Amino acid sequence: MNVTLRGRTRHFRTVTFDAAHNSVLLIEQRLLPHEFKIVATRDFRETARAIHDMVVRGAGAIGASAAYGLAQGVRAFRGNDLKKFSTHAEMVFQTLKSARPTAVDPVNAMNDVRREMMRGKTVSERQLLAQAAAEEFANEDVEHCEAIGRHGRKLIRNGTRILTHCNAGWLAFVDIGSATAPMYAAQAAGKKFHVWCDETRPRSQGATLTAWELAQQKISHQIIADNAAGHLMQRGKVGLVIVGSDRTLGRTGEVTNKIGTYTKAVLAARHKIPFYVAIPLSTIDWNMKNGFKIPIEERNESEVLGAWGILETRNGEKGKRQYVRVANPTSGACNPGFDVAPPELITGIITPAGIFKPKELWKHRRKLGCND
Amino acid sequence: MNVTLRGRTRHFRTVTFDAAHNSVLLIEQRLLPHEFKIVATRDFRETARAIHDMVVRGAGAIGASAAYGLAQGVRAFRGNDLKKFSTHAEMVFQTLKSARPTAVDPVNAMNDVRREMMRGKTVSERQLLAQAAAEEFANEDVEHCEAIGRHGRKLIRNGTRILTHCNAGWLAFVDIGSATAPMYAAQAAGKKFHVWCDETRPRSQGATLTAWELAQQKISHQIIADNAAGHLMQRGKVGLVIVGSDRTLGRTGEVTNKIGTYTKAVLAARHKIPFYVAIPLSTIDWNMKNGFKIPIEERNESEVLGAWGILETRNGEKGKRQYVRVANPTSGACNPGFDVAPPELITGIITPAGIFKPKELWKHRRKLGCND
Repeated sequence: MNVTLRGRTRHFRTVTFDAAHNSVLLIEQRLLPHEFKIVATRDFRETARAIHDMVVRGAGAIGASAAYGLAQGVRAFRGNDLKKFSTHAEMVFQTLKSARPTAVDPVNAMNDVRREMMRGKTVSERQLLAQAAAEEFANEDVEHCEAIGRHGRKLIRNGTRILTHCNAGWLAFVDIGSATAPMYAAQAAGKKFHVWCDETRPRSQGATLTAWELAQQKISHQIIADNAAGHLMQRGKVGLVIVGSDRTLGRTGEVTNKIGTYTKAVLAARHKIPFYVAIPLSTIDWNMKNGFKIPIEERNESEVLGAWGILETRNGEKGKRQYVRVANPTSGACNPGFDVAPPELITGIITPAGIFKPKELWKHRRKLGCND
Repeated sequence: MNVTLRGRTRHFRTVTFDAAHNSVLLIEQRLLPHEFKIVATRDFRETARAIHDMVVRGAGAIGASAAYGLAQGVRAFRGNDLKKFSTHAEMVFQTLKSARPTAVDPVNAMNDVRREMMRGKTVSERQLLAQAAAEEFANEDVEHCEAIGRHGRKLIRNGTRILTHCNAGWLAFVDIGSATAPMYAAQAAGKKFHVWCDETRPRSQGATLTAWELAQQKISHQIIADNAAGHLMQRGKVGLVIVGSDRTLGRTGEVTNKIGTYTKAVLAARHKIPFYVAIPLSTIDWNMKNGFKIPIEERNESEVLGAWGILETRNGEKGKRQYVRVANPTSGACNPGFDVAPPELITGIITPAGIFKPKELWKHRRKLGCND
């Protein structure tokens, strides 16, 4: 999407490939929203490290980063020996896979690249095919988000006030995003609307990443404390909720997403406000049969006990990003990272293939990419 | 309640009066939880400034501070001229009243003191009566909180996991607190339980003040992001909710409290978890007929856009308290300070006179101190 730097607006993807320098270009997301910087990795190990260190995060974005990283790694191979090439490719694959061991997207993306690559008969053919397949993966990610936008934009009318939680925006994908896709599509169609960004404690991705995205795109928005959403709904100030998902169960329609999503779903249901979840097909888990079995990551308590931000100096200059301890120093915290919303609280799932009731995902599994 | 300083445990009230030095002693709440300090005001103007600057906050605590401040002010009067004394007393009253112009507690407290004082026939009699009446007001505040504790402790069983929001603890009163009173009483009765402290963004009173109180009292507790309460309820980890209130409508049973309270009430109702509101009688508004007419203060957006905390230096030393900007620098915020929970979401109101259904406050208004 667009980023305005020193008064000039340019289009960026979260992840791109610089073939001339065999380098993966990443938006350094850890510096946002306070600084915009593109990082160029010099080899696949640096790409793996960038994924590991969360320079890049978000399902689609790390998938594409791994796909490009695999292409980058195999392109660096010198020689014609197919056997040595395969050994090298496997090492690259494993290095990138281990950068975020619990994430499924990098593995799925690299499997796509490897399958295409193996159609080549020589090392150089395979190198070319790997690069093309990685580009194809990234472009498909963008197309899927565009399709989510096309389906979802119909939900947004002039004047709609939309609540979103966390960041399921273009920074989490190659471009456009999932929960933000209907907003960007509605904006392109000339609609005027307002977005409430839940700050999304404890990591504040709403206040930092989503707010930054919307500001860059010149979409009217305000950040709210997570505590304020219920009050705004009660006063009739929320017309629509759109969130993303980390894992949606195809068999039950249960939606796992950032902690706090369940709460917003409960509130929306009470106030009869439509609650939508926007996801690419890769987010659907067709195997798991019970949302209560989804493992909920217990994250470090320091996230709850403090906050990261920029010190503002007296003369208004920006200081560096710092952690401050907010909480009582002798208290601990409990920090579940995700929660699970049941299907009865969800109005619809916006996918690249259309909008579906959560309990009807299974019925439509063929068109949703389930091969079972 | 107890505070442990350098290994030694002592009992403190939030507000006391040092008659020998004609000084009001206040816990400097703006430094908590990182530093414990008692401030002594030298005259009523300093007391008014302390109330204004929120050295002391919370309904009961600012009521007692104003009562003591009035006594402090009239005790400083020199001479026997009753007319001049009355003019002086009125000036003291108005100075303390204007320290927090929207708060009702300082005015109610000072009206009590003034009424008692006027029974004196000489300046010195009135000075003595003012001091005695201020002490009486503070002691009554404590007795009311003790009574809330006696009624509320029955709700807590061994092993109960209690959720609370914001700080309705002893720091908000002279001692004991409202929402915390049942916890302290249950602890005194030998019960073992656990408290989830909502961090209570944007001002984080749960993470700072409530967590500090519970840690000092050695009550098992953990801080959670406001986003996590719903998930914990869904997983059966919350057995009881107790919160305070800034204003409860005696005619309708609607409860105004810190932003986020409504959300917790909605979640508790969904999960059939008892939701109690603990209040002193002064919190009941017997006049207002519609909770939607309660003015909701829109607070400064900087609270949502950043956080206050202590910088931790590399060698583990404490730095000074600092504000960091967390949010995107080009985004604004919407920051309602309070919300209103309807009576159907509230299991009971714990008062010094017993526990009542919110819709039955009006029926029991005589014993709840309504003189209409």
